[in-house]
Parts: sequence; C-alpha cells; structure tokens
Amino acid sequence: MPLNIRKLDASAPDFAASLRAVLAFEAEDDRAIDAAVADILLDVRKRGDAAVLDYTRRFDRIDAADMAALEISSTELDAALEGLEPTRRAALEAAASRVRAFHEKQKIECGSHSWQYAEADGTVLGQRVTPLDRVGLYVPGGKAAYPSSVLMNAIPAQVAGVSEIIMTVPTPGGARNPLVLAAASLAGVNRVFAIGGAQAVGALAYGTATVPAVDKIVGPGNAYVACAKRRVFGTVGIDMIAGPSEILVICDGTTDPHWIAMDLFSQAEHDELAQSILLCPDEGFIGRVEAAANALLGDMPRSATIRASLEGRGAFIKVRDLAEACRIANDIAPEHLEISTQDPQQWAARIRHAGAIFLGRFTSESLGDYCAGPNHVLPTSRTARFSSPLGVYDFTKRSSIIEVSRAGAETLGEIAAELAYGEGLQAHARSAEFRMPARNADFEDQVEGDRNGASAGEQR
Amino acid sequence: MPLNIRKLDASAPDFAASLRAVLAFEAEDDRAIDAAVADILLDVRKRGDAAVLDYTRRFDRIDAADMAALEISSTELDAALEGLEPTRRAALEAAASRVRAFHEKQKIECGSHSWQYAEADGTVLGQRVTPLDRVGLYVPGGKAAYPSSVLMNAIPAQVAGVSEIIMTVPTPGGARNPLVLAAASLAGVNRVFAIGGAQAVGALAYGTATVPAVDKIVGPGNAYVACAKRRVFGTVGIDMIAGPSEILVICDGTTDPHWIAMDLFSQAEHDELAQSILLCPDEGFIGRVEAAANALLGDMPRSATIRASLEGRGAFIKVRDLAEACRIANDIAPEHLEISTQDPQQWAARIRHAGAIFLGRFTSESLGDYCAGPNHVLPTSRTARFSSPLGVYDFTKRSSIIEVSRAGAETLGEIAAELAYGEGLQAHARSAEFRMPARNADFEDQVEGDRNGASAGEQR
Repeated sequence: MPLNIRKLDASAPDFAASLRAVLAFEAEDDRAIDAAVADILLDVRKRGDAAVLDYTRRFDRIDAADMAALEISSTELDAALEGLEPTRRAALEAAASRVRAFHEKQKIECGSHSWQYAEADGTVLGQRVTPLDRVGLYVPGGKAAYPSSVLMNAIPAQVAGVSEIIMTVPTPGGARNPLVLAAASLAGVNRVFAIGGAQAVGALAYGTATVPAVDKIVGPGNAYVACAKRRVFGTVGIDMIAGPSEILVICDGTTDPHWIAMDLFSQAEHDELAQSILLCPDEGFIGRVEAAANALLGDMPRSATIRASLEGRGAFIKVRDLAEACRIANDIAPEHLEISTQDPQQWAARIRHAGAIFLGRFTSESLGDYCAGPNHVLPTSRTARFSSPLGVYDFTKRSSIIEVSRAGAETLGEIAAELAYGEGLQAHARSAEFRMPARNADFEDQVEGDRNGASAGEQR
Repeated sequence: MPLNIRKLDASAPDFAASLRAVLAFEAEDDRAIDAAVADILLDVRKRGDAAVLDYTRRFDRIDAADMAALEISSTELDAALEGLEPTRRAALEAAASRVRAFHEKQKIECGSHSWQYAEADGTVLGQRVTPLDRVGLYVPGGKAAYPSSVLMNAIPAQVAGVSEIIMTVPTPGGARNPLVLAAASLAGVNRVFAIGGAQAVGALAYGTATVPAVDKIVGPGNAYVACAKRRVFGTVGIDMIAGPSEILVICDGTTDPHWIAMDLFSQAEHDELAQSILLCPDEGFIGRVEAAANALLGDMPRSATIRASLEGRGAFIKVRDLAEACRIANDIAPEHLEISTQDPQQWAARIRHAGAIFLGRFTSESLGDYCAGPNHVLPTSRTARFSSPLGVYDFTKRSSIIEVSRAGAETLGEIAAELAYGEGLQAHARSAEFRMPARNADFEDQVEGDRNGASAGEQR
C-alpha cells in the first residue's frame, strides 16, 4: 500500500490552522504516571538502596542481593570496549574524538572563562565560571539504548571539567548492552549502575548509601523518567524534557529525491511519534520524493515505524518560495533543519529558531547524529525558541564577583540606600550607610580594625 | 527579649547533621495548590482573556470590563517615571545604567557571539547565538513589589537583544505601584498587564487574544506562580524556581560587628524564611555580633520579621579557621556569600559554589541588590551547585551549524553508517551512504543535479 502522507499548500487559506494541527503534540499529562513517580521518588528518598532494589526487582526483573551487584565495574566497561569488533570500535573512537574536538572548541567560544574588570575607583566586578562537581547521566535501556547518546552526554561534561560522571542504565532481565558499556568506557564515565526509571532518577537526585547524589541529571528517558526529572528539578539541575524527534527539510528541488526521502526516513524510523516534514516550492519534486519514499520503504527493516510516523505526523508542504520556507521553519522551530539547496548559507541566515542546521545536500542529518562533532541532544517540540543543544555550558555555572572599594562604597551606598528606603527595606539601607563616613558618625572608629588589618596585611 | 540565634561549632561531632537541619527547607509540595494551578492553567488555555478576567476579579478584586482595561499604557509608565521625586529617580537611573553596563560586558564575555571553523576537507562546524524573540517578566505585587527586580530582569533581556518584553504585575484592589511602573518605563518594557498569579503565567505561556504568547517567563512569585512556572516549563522556558533568600557571611573577626549584624539583618528582613548565617573562627567576635544585633534590632521597622528569620533559620557557626569556613560555604552553596576578611581573594579562590561573592568589608550585599551592576536574581537553596545568576545568556540560545563537504561526507559517512548499523538504524546508515560514491552505484547520476546547480550558482 503506498504511503499516505499529508500534503499541505502554504498558500491555502487554512494553512496556519493545518500546520498547527500537524505540529500539535501533547506531552503525556498522565496523572497516573505522575502519582506513581511521586510515590517512587518519596520511597527512594526515604529507603534509599532498599527501595531502588525493590523497584529494580519489580520493573526490570533483576533480583540483586544488594546495590553492589547492580554496579557495573570499570573492568566490565573496559572489557566491553576491548570486545568490540575492530571496525565498530574504530568508528566509535573516531566519533568520540570528533565530538570531543567540537566541544573543546565550544569551551573556548562559549564563554566558559572567568572575567572581571575594575572601575576607576577600584571597585571590581566580574563572573567566575566553574564546572559542576558531579553529574548523573541517564541512559535508556532496551531498544532505544544508543551508544552515541552516551558519548554526546558524557563528553561535554568531561570537557567542562566535571570531576565525576555517574551513569545509570536499566538492564531489563539483566541484559547489558555491550556497545553502551563500551561507549561509557570510551567517554570516561566514572561509575555505572544498572538501574533505570524514576528510581534511578531519585537515586541520583537524593543519593543513597551506594549511589552518590549528583548536581545535575542529563539524558533522555521514557514518560516515567521525564516526569521524575521534572519533579526533582530544583533539588538537582536537569537538561530538558525531550519530546519526539523531528526533522524539517527545506529543499529547492535540485537534490536527488531519494536522498531527501531517506533523510525523512532517518527521523521517522526512531519512533511512531517522530516528525518528518518537507518544505519545497516545486510540486513536481515533492511528487518525486513521494515516489522515492514508496520505492525505498520496502527495504527498510523498520518500515512499519517509518510508515506510522510519516502517515501520522509527517507532511509535504508546498511553499511559494524558499523565503516562505524559512518563515515557516522559524515558526516550527525544528530540532533538526536540513537546508538542501544551492547556496544554503543565504537561507540559513534567515533562520532564527532551530536546534541544529544542516547545510547543503551532502550534510545528511545522520552525520550530525553520530560524528560530525556538534551535540545530537537538541531541543524538540518548538523549544528551540528558547533552548540550545546540550553543550559545555550545561555543565558549568557562574558566580558573580563584587568587590567594592572604600570610595565605591560611598557612591554606590548613596544609590542603594535611596532605593532601599523606597522599597521599605531599612536594613538594606543601613547596611550600605554603615560603610559611608558621611552617614555614619562612628565610621572612623569602625574602620580602625580595618586600618590595623590593612597595615598588618601590608607587613606580610 | 534578646535574640535567640542558634550557635553551632564546626568541630562538634554532630555538626554535619546540625548543619543539614539548619539548611533543610522543603519547597511547599502542596497538592491543593498544584491542583488549583492545573485547573487555572487549563482554563486560561481554553478560555483565554475571559478566564484571566474571571480570576483577576476573584483574586485581585478588579472588575475589569475587558483585558484592554488591564493593560497599563506606556503613557502611564512614563508618567510614573516623570512623577518620581528627583533623588529617587536619579538613584533608579544610576542603578539601571550600572546594571546595563555590567550586562553589556557580560554579553561580550559570556559567549553570546556566533562562531564557526572549517576543517581541512572543507566541512564547516559551529554555533550561532540568537536572542529570544519575546520574553515574559512576572513581577510580584503587594509588599514584595521591588522596582529593582524589574531592572534586574528586564535589562539583561534587552541587552541580549530580545525584541519584546511583556510584563505582568498583579495590582490587588487596583493599587498600582508607581516605583514599579517607573522601573518598567526606565528598563524599556514593551507592554504591561495588571494581572498576576497562575492566570498571568498561563496567559504568557499560551497567549490569549490580548496577551501575546512569550518564549520564556522570568521573575519571582508566590507558591502559585512557582507551581505554574514548573507546569508550563517546556511550552516556554523558565528561569528558576526561587526559594527563600540567603546570606552566608565569612568573617575573620576584624570587621565592625555592627556592620556584620546589619548585613545579616538585610537578608532576614526579606522574609521569615530567609536565612542568615555567619561563619567565624573567633568566638569572641561572634559574641560581639550577637550583642550588636541585639542593640540594633529595636530600630528596625521590620524587627519582627528579622527576629523570626534569625531565630528560625539563622545560625552563628564557629569554625576552626577560614579554610574550614570555605569548605562549609561550598557545602551550603549560598545565594549570597560575603567574605569580610583581610585579603578576601585568597579565600574567594577556594569557593566553588555561590550565586554571588561579595569581597571585602566595604562590599555590603545590599550594594549588589541594587546597583553594583551584577544581577540580583541568584540561585537559592543550594542550586548554585548547578545554576547561575540571571544573565544575558538566559535570553539567548544556540543553534548548531553543520555543513559537510563532499569529501567530508565520505569520511564521516563511513563512521556514521558503521554506528547506525550498530544501533539498528538502517535509514540513518543509508542516508549517509547515499552521499558516498563507493556505496552508492547511482551516485554520479544523483549529484548531476548538484553539478548543474553548482555551475548555475557559479554563473551568478
């Protein structure tokens, strides 16, 4: 049966509404899941390891005597790497090294250096940038266990200077995925626990006797994991709540239609809810992409998922021109945007919102997924309007530095006291005024200690 | 009655547990609030303006005919600024200008520039940094309505290049705070609505016929607002969920004890739940700070709040030395850290986790609250372990740029295809292989269009 993919025309009067309907995706707001997760988190907080063991027994069917039995040793991780078939190992190493190189560059460019400046009166202002101490990396188990995700989450943390990376990965029925373990070894993950679900999120957020509490939890997961991350946000940092993956392809109609069809497939094969959309001004080309998709589908081992995704959430959209395509792309704010056109830079310059922009016909999105270097953890569901790819900046934080000179305390004190009185905060005002000779009769007595101290300091 | 402030000794065997007890603060996990907020958000999403008007009638006792009546015009904002007493206006302008100068510096230093680099084979990688389009600024009403917060939230957004800032501020009983309106005028807020609570958060997140939907909501609020922000996170970005304010003072015992006492007061006067802690190696000095606090308390208009805060959540902690004080400070990860010592830099160098660090005895925290320049919106409740002061970076986001050359598609394709097959994602592999001549018999036919296109491009 030929693929039945939705076709829209951007010049149709109801286009805006049709597009909204295509994009509409409600993150599961399941009160049953929410209540179950709340209970699990509370239990893990209260009973620690014992609770984690119970849930792992129940959900993953692993009857571990204690948490130590659920820790995957570095020996086992390294053995997994050693055990890889050489071509695969070389590919994983090449990917890791490219991802590391990009993030090293990002560390330099993204403002992860501390800075400060002095004003004329000696007051110093600035910010210090420091890495997080300890980070938790949630890796999904089962069919969505992707070694590339281990690299993409762990490497930026390492590059940022995080001292300890704790990974959790559920192993339902006890099956450990050697590629995932190999990636953990390669990426320099410090400790790995074979646990998952809300109980793993709880263990990382609150800590147990065995699992150390982390400062931030990153990595994708199912509805329980997403719900747990939302709930522990505040106790720890979280990266984002990921929705289904998306690709938006803008094509001028000069790329081989088979290439475009396969690019749409590469997103659709992830998940029935994944979204693949093509924007093109050439109706004939859209027809050729559709024909190519029908010709290629049969060879795809995941053809059922691809069909469900394309028919349920995919779309071919005919646009007036590429400028309109860019406007629609900004409205969609896609996770992945492929600009498969001549002179793609001119169109990229018009894009304001997208997780990653793939330029030119040789840049298939799958190269970015694995090894181009930039991170494949990207904002989904229109969140590229306000959020960014996972990066070194997600594993650092800033502290403001304020050192006001004696002269600065007078000029700034005037302003602060005036505004503090205006806000009815007298202690704020007085605290500033204590440092101002004109407003503090005892000032000279009070800085006496300072003078002595200062001279003591000078004597050192 | 003299202040009864908890005293701890860091060398006591139960110190770790005592410190935990002092720091313990459970964000309200009130299921009634959560359910009420969920209902309000759903209603605003469904009924828009009508729902917002209903809740504003009910909670703020304002019987507005329509949303237009709840919009505060720019004329009214400007009039509020014009109407300020000259000294106050000058102070507000001086503060705004210093906050702007600091954030302009931050914009340069914090990595808000786009960057890219080319590899040997012509592949280009990088990141583009762009401002958010539209931001919502929630300003609390009533007693906690702080004009300084308007400046601190709006100015970094403006500096980042956000095109539109929409502010909401509840005006219970219709009372509009002229200082807040003046600050909005001064900071360049684009539109202001006199609405608040979960209904304002919903209006900003989903948009109504009158209130435009924003991309991110920043600003503090009560338990309903915090709960609503947590719930709309994902639809829009949010800044953080703020807890009670905190100050930690490290003092070597050479600063005037009155100054230190007043600094502790300046945090305590905010809120009964605010937390003020002093770390000092000199037991005699701790006694003098306590005596000063008792002497100063009577003059404080907010003495009841100060007393409740200091007695309920404050602490004087005797430490062995300043090195130990720094270790404890890292564990507390305070919002505000004052290092009131000789040679404060040597101790600041040991601090890993703090929202803002105030160095030297002249740097009262209140100078930072109003006008030093750095932001006063800071991570609370130990979240400085993983988050940062509000800044220009909160109003920008990044898009990755990937442009793979024809040669790059071959080398990267090898790696990507190998890993994609390993992950069972055949469409990913094929999509890469289509761009590799060695793996694609039809390659030359398929790039024919590209060649033609390229020559067409060259002819321009």
